[in-house]
Amino acid sequence: MTASPAIDVPVALLGYGTVGAAINRLLEEGADEIERATGHRLRVVKALVRELDTERGYPAAPGVLTTDVEEIIGDESIRIVSEVMGGVDPAGDYVSRLLRAGTSVVSANKQLLARKSPELFAAAAEGGAQLRFEASVCAAIPVIKVLRESLVVTNVHRVLGIVNGTTNFILTRMETGASYQEALAEAQRLGYAEADPTDDVSGADAAAKMAILATVAFGSRVPLEDVSYEGIDTLRPGVVDAARALGAVVRLVGTATLVDGAVDVRVGPALVDRHHPLASVEGAFNAVMLQGDAIRELMLEGPGAGGVETASAIVADMVGVLGTTGTGFLQGDATWRELPKLPPGELRAAHYVRLEVADRPGVLAHVAARFAEEGVSIARLTQHLVDGAAALDIVTHASPAGKLQAALDAVAALPEVRETPRALRLVTERGVS
Amino acid sequence: MTASPAIDVPVALLGYGTVGAAINRLLEEGADEIERATGHRLRVVKALVRELDTERGYPAAPGVLTTDVEEIIGDESIRIVSEVMGGVDPAGDYVSRLLRAGTSVVSANKQLLARKSPELFAAAAEGGAQLRFEASVCAAIPVIKVLRESLVVTNVHRVLGIVNGTTNFILTRMETGASYQEALAEAQRLGYAEADPTDDVSGADAAAKMAILATVAFGSRVPLEDVSYEGIDTLRPGVVDAARALGAVVRLVGTATLVDGAVDVRVGPALVDRHHPLASVEGAFNAVMLQGDAIRELMLEGPGAGGVETASAIVADMVGVLGTTGTGFLQGDATWRELPKLPPGELRAAHYVRLEVADRPGVLAHVAARFAEEGVSIARLTQHLVDGAAALDIVTHASPAGKLQAALDAVAALPEVRETPRALRLVTERGVS
Repeated sequence: MTASPAIDVPVALLGYGTVGAAINRLLEEGADEIERATGHRLRVVKALVRELDTERGYPAAPGVLTTDVEEIIGDESIRIVSEVMGGVDPAGDYVSRLLRAGTSVVSANKQLLARKSPELFAAAAEGGAQLRFEASVCAAIPVIKVLRESLVVTNVHRVLGIVNGTTNFILTRMETGASYQEALAEAQRLGYAEADPTDDVSGADAAAKMAILATVAFGSRVPLEDVSYEGIDTLRPGVVDAARALGAVVRLVGTATLVDGAVDVRVGPALVDRHHPLASVEGAFNAVMLQGDAIRELMLEGPGAGGVETASAIVADMVGVLGTTGTGFLQGDATWRELPKLPPGELRAAHYVRLEVADRPGVLAHVAARFAEEGVSIARLTQHLVDGAAALDIVTHASPAGKLQAALDAVAALPEVRETPRALRLVTERGVS
Repeated sequence: MTASPAIDVPVALLGYGTVGAAINRLLEEGADEIERATGHRLRVVKALVRELDTERGYPAAPGVLTTDVEEIIGDESIRIVSEVMGGVDPAGDYVSRLLRAGTSVVSANKQLLARKSPELFAAAAEGGAQLRFEASVCAAIPVIKVLRESLVVTNVHRVLGIVNGTTNFILTRMETGASYQEALAEAQRLGYAEADPTDDVSGADAAAKMAILATVAFGSRVPLEDVSYEGIDTLRPGVVDAARALGAVVRLVGTATLVDGAVDVRVGPALVDRHHPLASVEGAFNAVMLQGDAIRELMLEGPGAGGVETASAIVADMVGVLGTTGTGFLQGDATWRELPKLPPGELRAAHYVRLEVADRPGVLAHVAARFAEEGVSIARLTQHLVDGAAALDIVTHASPAGKLQAALDAVAALPEVRETPRALRLVTERGVS
């Protein structure tokens, strides 16, 4: 192949914080690699900031920083813009205008993608531009690329993910004896958790990422409001020990499942069997497992956050824009069908339930009867006696979530039961013998 | 984006065994998905076979099978050819002629790639065609794509891989009590191992895959003969138990390391710490961990073999050929520099050594002195006494492989030492706190 002369490609950034500065640095330091890979040299010519005079981790060249977005949107020489400013407004408006004008956009903004992707992809189609968003989910883990480009014919039917590093860090620390509050405080000290950690610990952040992953995996738009989520902030103390006794660890797991042509996406704490690959994901790392017909299962694991990791994913998407031709939806919207939402009670899973009960004769029989009445089959039941009270650890066989909830509601109404029981899913299946 | 009308793309297969038939099936069953992704419909028009009348798992359309390769090489309408016939001759000649004539080739043939890639990429450059080879390493795991397209600017400096499913299956079975011979026999019964398992258990298969991965990761050709390898066929019985006592598992690990501008690639059994992600790779699965500046570490895990898994990777590469433009080496040869080979004694690693010694006073001191003389620092030493004999389990700190070997040679010369000791590398480091 004869090398064409390198073509200068002016690019711009919306935002020049940690990620924006890291993109500029990677583009400068990696210019030779990018030229070898694409025949092009990418050069940041403008970067939108709120204030010109703030100190930057990696300074931009003179004249690059601007507070006027029109200098970017109105500059027809700019081929690619990376949106790393965050938020839905005004970022969505800027991105939409750029795409409609034919400028390709690479975004790291999961809220924007999860909330506005129909409008944005329509704008991209109108302008003949590309919208890429690898960095919006799990930073440097190339799960969007693998789903779209490597698994074209594999009918992915399930996505399992640990997609929030903050909660995974907290849960891993709890395994070595820390309380939830101690682990959260440590995560905040290390910069893994915000001062207000609600978005992470409630599961909301993971829900937005799972909405994006499910949309790409199944080719059907999954709106954010269709993703049910529970966080780790309401976990009962002791659940980590109970999990260990069952040969499992607690993880905040997102699942997107295609069942008979309907989609279920949810996020919640789960007991993951020690031998399952997701159980080995420790600290602030993320992992996504893709299950499909032709590949059985494929897992990608890596850092799910971080400035340079996110910047690396953005640069890869920029390189992807340069290297591809727009003849299909590899470069456009990934959705091509409208699948219904599975009624939330219908998803089948095995569950773990802890019940605090009074230690009276017959309580075990009463509990078992409530499960049996709803057709929920018990795989294992362990009774612990402590000071006149008892705790039951129950593991069910796979059953519809709605039936399980009905059984739990009936159990909660028993006079011997001391608190409303909560079920955690079990993640045990492997596609490997 | 307006959809262009679908363009018919005739493709051909060299070979129509398990993988070839699976490619044909995936292309037919996935035709709509491929058209959505690329705007093209891929259609198998010719497939080279040795005999026309053999029964096929998924039959080809009438007139597709041929025993004459010239019907494929001479057909200018054919855009992409998948080489799934195996072997270096005559496959290499066919692929070379196709590429020179401008036909892109997608190959699953690791021996061909590991041995002939300079000639093949030269032919591809001459013909302006693409040569892709995702399926040659770890089947459906998209590690070549991720290395080339996602990690363009990340300076990958280390690749760790479990790239042979047969040996991983055997080692996993040995963890649950099977002997090597029992586990091998089971692997053969299940079709994971050949009747002659030498290529797998000796480490030769893994060495060819590591040569390809190192070449792509470091951009410098690593010839097969530069990869040193040891297999699992000579492992001492009991090593699995010794590993467990150290909180580790035994895995056949390939490592490609860039040290001060020189390359070391080797394959051998290693003790992998239980908390390392590679330790959770069980059964016939494969996994590759990539370590680089911007991404810290990224691990990909999945089925490393299988007809449909390999076919899935080939179809993804065909889709990649259609979707990309040839302006750089994303589509061509991945090598752009010539790095020297690190002298094999210089690679630093921590090791585990088992020594069978006579139980005499002073033997421990003698052994320790030999290590000290070579500057190999001992991290942990455990002595087991059994019937007048003793065994020493030694874990070293990281030291150059040559120094360790010199210490072992000196130790082997001690009169108390009963057999030539063998060192296994330790894999413990993680890029995560």
